[in-house]
Amino acid sequence: MSESEIAAFKCGWIEQMAAMAGGPPPTIEQQRAAFDAEHGAVPPAENCMITSIGRDGVRGERIVPTGADTDKALLYHHGGGHVFGSSLSHRHLVSRLASAAGVVAYNMDYALAPEAPYPAGLDDAVNAWQFVIDEGFQPRDIVVGGESAGGNLTLALVLKLREMGRALPGGAYLLSPWLDLTQSGDAYDIRGPHDPMVSRDILQGMADMYCAHAVPEDPLLSPLNGDMTDLPPMLVQVGTDEVLLGDSTRLAHRAALAGNDMTLRIWPEMIHAWLLFHHVLPVAGNAAIAEAGQWISARLKAERQA
Amino acid sequence: MSESEIAAFKCGWIEQMAAMAGGPPPTIEQQRAAFDAEHGAVPPAENCMITSIGRDGVRGERIVPTGADTDKALLYHHGGGHVFGSSLSHRHLVSRLASAAGVVAYNMDYALAPEAPYPAGLDDAVNAWQFVIDEGFQPRDIVVGGESAGGNLTLALVLKLREMGRALPGGAYLLSPWLDLTQSGDAYDIRGPHDPMVSRDILQGMADMYCAHAVPEDPLLSPLNGDMTDLPPMLVQVGTDEVLLGDSTRLAHRAALAGNDMTLRIWPEMIHAWLLFHHVLPVAGNAAIAEAGQWISARLKAERQA
Repeated sequence: MSESEIAAFKCGWIEQMAAMAGGPPPTIEQQRAAFDAEHGAVPPAENCMITSIGRDGVRGERIVPTGADTDKALLYHHGGGHVFGSSLSHRHLVSRLASAAGVVAYNMDYALAPEAPYPAGLDDAVNAWQFVIDEGFQPRDIVVGGESAGGNLTLALVLKLREMGRALPGGAYLLSPWLDLTQSGDAYDIRGPHDPMVSRDILQGMADMYCAHAVPEDPLLSPLNGDMTDLPPMLVQVGTDEVLLGDSTRLAHRAALAGNDMTLRIWPEMIHAWLLFHHVLPVAGNAAIAEAGQWISARLKAERQA
Repeated sequence: MSESEIAAFKCGWIEQMAAMAGGPPPTIEQQRAAFDAEHGAVPPAENCMITSIGRDGVRGERIVPTGADTDKALLYHHGGGHVFGSSLSHRHLVSRLASAAGVVAYNMDYALAPEAPYPAGLDDAVNAWQFVIDEGFQPRDIVVGGESAGGNLTLALVLKLREMGRALPGGAYLLSPWLDLTQSGDAYDIRGPHDPMVSRDILQGMADMYCAHAVPEDPLLSPLNGDMTDLPPMLVQVGTDEVLLGDSTRLAHRAALAGNDMTLRIWPEMIHAWLLFHHVLPVAGNAAIAEAGQWISARLKAERQA
């Protein structure tokens, strides 16, 4: 993609942040509303049937692209630091991932901090998993996925399911995942100057809200610390211009040393969760969505043929 | 691929090693001859025109698959611990990579230790690069590649070209690369019990021969220590059942933190440089060759369209 495209986007983002910093700090409700308004306004993929789903604690939506393989599913958890984001804000991305993969997607909401700290969000993720199973999908026919804090929930969900003795999903797709809630590692200092969006301070504030009285080093909060034995195959996409880069490279190292199938795709010049910005970064955003879709599709076909 | 297939192969390899260990240790000449005989007997890919090339210190062969894009090239350096291996032993693999990528391949020989320690092999790699340039290829239209010690030479070549102020290749393909000639990192202990083929002791013996009086930590001997700024995009393929796994994951981390485009593909259950054994491990061997070919092809097409 063109450097000017990225540069313009980064400048825009930085100016936006600076403008926000000039006024009174927004409340969490204002942040949530602003994020939902901005991202909810991006149209979803064409030719998708989108229906709300709800049962007990399960809230979200089912997205069925025309022609999708209705035996295969993506269970997706949005990002937003465990504090903001929703199925509304992520409809445009999840519908595109579903279309690119040719599968049914479940685009889920979950309880947010600080009102509902850990383990409320993870409990919701477990309930969402059960909901998809109850819809008739086999575990191996489901890829679980999410970006940033949603990547945190995704890997924590896999670890939790194993702890519960449950069958695991056929794959896990992690975009710019936040896997270490203590914000450690050398990427913070080395990539910090290149990251226009996320910082150790921002993450620390969100981690404090999500962890509340729990220990951040717990593997269900920082899944980088989890037992990596026998995990499903994983695709990790991450940009070089983000402080969370090291969470992905460290996951690749640890998952590999435990013997797992891992594809780590490092995209130069890309910022945190850039697929969410496909409408402003069309070249890299759409190419990365296509890459994720191909991986999900191949992974689920591979399971079917096995 | 089937687990029985891998298990049978691993058992066969271990028995072979054990049988060799029972007799008098083979001389280096015997090892070279045995390796060339075994791998030279595997037929090359069909429909390739293979011609010897030679000029001054440059020796090897040009492989042109039918229908290849003759403006694009793969410059490949074989593995063998800097001590054995040849264009003959690797013809079957390099011709398959060339066919899968649809490009011309240069399958090169280079001076081997202990007779010719560092920098003789790297000097030959630089000369081979110049030979391919003189054949009319643009640097950006060339992917450099190699496995094991050939991966070491490949990344060292890129660092050396930058040191010389030369234009860099369009991409680098590294299969099970040996990037740290001090054999450090936790993969040796963690994956050692799973590796039927390579060990710290074996590598240390080869490193001693290659390094001779040079310092193994030098980036041109251990390119993991090199300055990773502005490297070409890289594909790294590595198996989980090899002690060299950590060289690849550490490269991914360091290259990423320097801002580079990196694809790290970790293949579970696969042993060191398993693509060389496609004739005994057809499923995983051929799938990995296809993966490498697709990456090389896409990389060079991307350069052409840019």
